[in-house]
Amino acid sequence: MRMLLVAGTTHTALIDGISAAGVSPEATRHTPVADTEIVAFGQPVFAPEVPVSPTGCPTPALITRAIRERVGFDLLPIDAGLDEPTAAPTYSLGNGSGGDIRQPEPVPNAETLFDGARELAYALPDDRLLVGESIPGGTTTALGVLRALGESFGVSSSLPDNPVALKRETVDAGLDASGLEPGELANQPGAAVRLMGDPVLASVAGIIAGAAERWAGVTLGGGTQMVAAAALARHADVEAPLRIATTPYVANDDAVDLAAAADGLDLEVTITDPGFDVTDHEAMTRYPAGEAKEGVGLGGALWLADNQGIPMVELREHISTRYVGLVGTNGQ
Amino acid sequence: MRMLLVAGTTHTALIDGISAAGVSPEATRHTPVADTEIVAFGQPVFAPEVPVSPTGCPTPALITRAIRERVGFDLLPIDAGLDEPTAAPTYSLGNGSGGDIRQPEPVPNAETLFDGARELAYALPDDRLLVGESIPGGTTTALGVLRALGESFGVSSSLPDNPVALKRETVDAGLDASGLEPGELANQPGAAVRLMGDPVLASVAGIIAGAAERWAGVTLGGGTQMVAAAALARHADVEAPLRIATTPYVANDDAVDLAAAADGLDLEVTITDPGFDVTDHEAMTRYPAGEAKEGVGLGGALWLADNQGIPMVELREHISTRYVGLVGTNGQ
Repeated sequence: MRMLLVAGTTHTALIDGISAAGVSPEATRHTPVADTEIVAFGQPVFAPEVPVSPTGCPTPALITRAIRERVGFDLLPIDAGLDEPTAAPTYSLGNGSGGDIRQPEPVPNAETLFDGARELAYALPDDRLLVGESIPGGTTTALGVLRALGESFGVSSSLPDNPVALKRETVDAGLDASGLEPGELANQPGAAVRLMGDPVLASVAGIIAGAAERWAGVTLGGGTQMVAAAALARHADVEAPLRIATTPYVANDDAVDLAAAADGLDLEVTITDPGFDVTDHEAMTRYPAGEAKEGVGLGGALWLADNQGIPMVELREHISTRYVGLVGTNGQ
Repeated sequence: MRMLLVAGTTHTALIDGISAAGVSPEATRHTPVADTEIVAFGQPVFAPEVPVSPTGCPTPALITRAIRERVGFDLLPIDAGLDEPTAAPTYSLGNGSGGDIRQPEPVPNAETLFDGARELAYALPDDRLLVGESIPGGTTTALGVLRALGESFGVSSSLPDNPVALKRETVDAGLDASGLEPGELANQPGAAVRLMGDPVLASVAGIIAGAAERWAGVTLGGGTQMVAAAALARHADVEAPLRIATTPYVANDDAVDLAAAADGLDLEVTITDPGFDVTDHEAMTRYPAGEAKEGVGLGGALWLADNQGIPMVELREHISTRYVGLVGTNGQ
């Protein structure tokens, strides 16, 4: 199995308090680079440090990497608008980050990203593709896309207290800036992601479309950002089966009605519980407490591990060892 | 172990009869793309076909890939001037192919390539690096660099009959075009590769330099092109230990005095015999007969397999299976 890890940037993440994918809004620009390097190499290489949330919770990339070491999946990092150079080899789709969605057209190259991702996914030899993402601020742009398309599903957050009001306000400002009413871009996914989305959403939607054209199976490893990507594909009339593999921390999030999204968008949902609530390793116990929750393909990696029959207790042990090696403590 | 596969292009390969890395000189432009995709994915993806020599001998990339499937080494493809898009994720060092060495300055961006490769190799977390290459025409540019540096070692060929006279004539024309006498650029490796080399040689030399700065071990998986890269590093006063891992087909090549190169450049040479002479699979028996010989990290991959104690008979069996799957015949 190969994971396409789609990494990019949106300036929406610079809004104070909107993202936990960095110790500060300014630090989030390094996060997708660091995440990609961590999954590719096991540690940051050009990125300055392991990304942590404002409260010190380390990036899910560490967990995805630890799972990769046990499961052995291939990695295809995709640069969908990184803002900094990465040492990881990447398939490059675009250049430059996405803008703040409160601008009229935050993703002017959305069509190029979609088409490039579709071309790649169509050409790859794999019968099944797993997709992950890393883009700080991505749940807000996901909400923007869902509102533009007229889908009413809520979105999750990497913060323990989802800043729902701030996200809504940001999306409302974005709709205003683009001169849009909610739902006005139903069945116009290209415009929806160009005016209200981010470069990663455009690219993931393109991967779904390209894989569908050759009947390759797609599993989206992630939470509500992947719901938004799936919505874009459905509004582009992609009818192929689609699976979302996520964590219980997204599924149990009160802000999210995953069952409604699955039903409305015809998605198969797989939830893999890594049992982080039965460990005393604080970096893992933060997940059931509502921090991080998902990201960097975590739900997909857990699904692969479960498919291979790797016991979760073994996986937690390996995650713990790798954490200590990289962060230097047990995450406290 | 991670293999840095440095792939690029030189227009020197367009000289009729100089390279076997393609069915025709024009076809060689696709070869490094196809080689990279084959090692990364097991088959060409954007590249139009599996590269074959004018006599139908398939690229060593197939063998390196088959070995990778058994050994499980990581791959970091490096784009050092590819002429066509590749589906493989790459670390991109440069843009555009190298020119024909009969031009005055075939690699104007040599310093950028060297510095970029050095920066990457210095930053990577690996204690040891394995380096491979794919660049049609590369033994001729290797000869050009060796002559400019004043090193007298000969170079091998992917053709069964090494076109030595044509290579010498090309190098002489290159020296003339650059206004150089043989040996004039001793201790000036930057100028030697800029005026008489190719983008892959500049990049491999940079990798050697960057790894040496942090005492990481480097194994060059390849033949006389790697000797030229090592010569560039030695002329840049890099004194760290260096190993070349190659095949017996290079070591036994009368055009090459590998022992003299090893002695003159202080290289440890490891030769791993895959026993292709005891198989009846024609694609493998062509190697002892003098075709292909080496390339796309083959000698390095064999060395890794041997280090892991994988029996060569098992490896040959797997190579044979993969050949049939991809080329559709047993290579005849």
